[in-house]
Amino acid sequence: MPLSLPRSEALQRLEHHFQSMPPVVAMAPRIDGFDGQRLQLSAPLAMHVNDKGCAFGGSMVSLLTLASWGLVSMQVEAAGIDAAIYVADSQVRYLHPVFEDLRITAELAPSGGWDAFLATLRQRRRARTSLVARLVLDDGRIATDFSARYVAIAR
Amino acid sequence: MPLSLPRSEALQRLEHHFQSMPPVVAMAPRIDGFDGQRLQLSAPLAMHVNDKGCAFGGSMVSLLTLASWGLVSMQVEAAGIDAAIYVADSQVRYLHPVFEDLRITAELAPSGGWDAFLATLRQRRRARTSLVARLVLDDGRIATDFSARYVAIAR
Repeated sequence: MPLSLPRSEALQRLEHHFQSMPPVVAMAPRIDGFDGQRLQLSAPLAMHVNDKGCAFGGSMVSLLTLASWGLVSMQVEAAGIDAAIYVADSQVRYLHPVFEDLRITAELAPSGGWDAFLATLRQRRRARTSLVARLVLDDGRIATDFSARYVAIAR
Repeated sequence: MPLSLPRSEALQRLEHHFQSMPPVVAMAPRIDGFDGQRLQLSAPLAMHVNDKGCAFGGSMVSLLTLASWGLVSMQVEAAGIDAAIYVADSQVRYLHPVFEDLRITAELAPSGGWDAFLATLRQRRRARTSLVARLVLDDGRIATDFSARYVAIAR
């Protein structure tokens, strides 16, 4: 995988992006880690709770959208490309209610590859990639299953 | 359409639901109206702006999820049924960036009918319905196109 910046620097930049967006600040996401493939975020249930005492669906899909966006942004920046990253579309399935803090993992869809995506972005100044993200419960069950396409447009 | 409560009372109840959910309060949605079919919400761009000066995709899908949930909740409550409403799945397409306040409309999908949904919920204590929602720009273009299924479970 092509991330060439030191990981800590890439994560600091992502944290800076998050802090610059009011709706993201309001969701209080914490960047829990990046292992080279998967970006992990979490957020407190108390800030995302609905009328039934579990996590609001809108909060979950927003955090899944954010985690995936964050992963694409990290890869593009680490490749030294200045590009705007937009979500193009997404699908989400809510499989179990979530009565605990929200733990989310985003990664490239199995069909994709960062090298091809970044090469296309360099050559054509525009590229598209598919991401998958999940909210996994403490007991290991997948509570929320998300897939999305993102577009990068070089500036 | 089966809404039997006075509209103003149904909207007041919805506003009360919104105010009871921290992530909804943080999005500052305003209930702009309900014409018997369509529920309209809006939210200020300033609270939903991303790093590019337009609306964050996660905010949009969260508000679309909320508006659709709100419409189902209104219908179920107005029918005098005590039920929990959950979003089951959703799809969203982002067609244009949004550089203005977010105006969202939710309604029943063309295939659906409230009477059948409420009758099923009464008889089987569980029912499912499909909603569509859109974010429409001031110039009339659809910026964001959303569809979702919701489940109501009688308590």
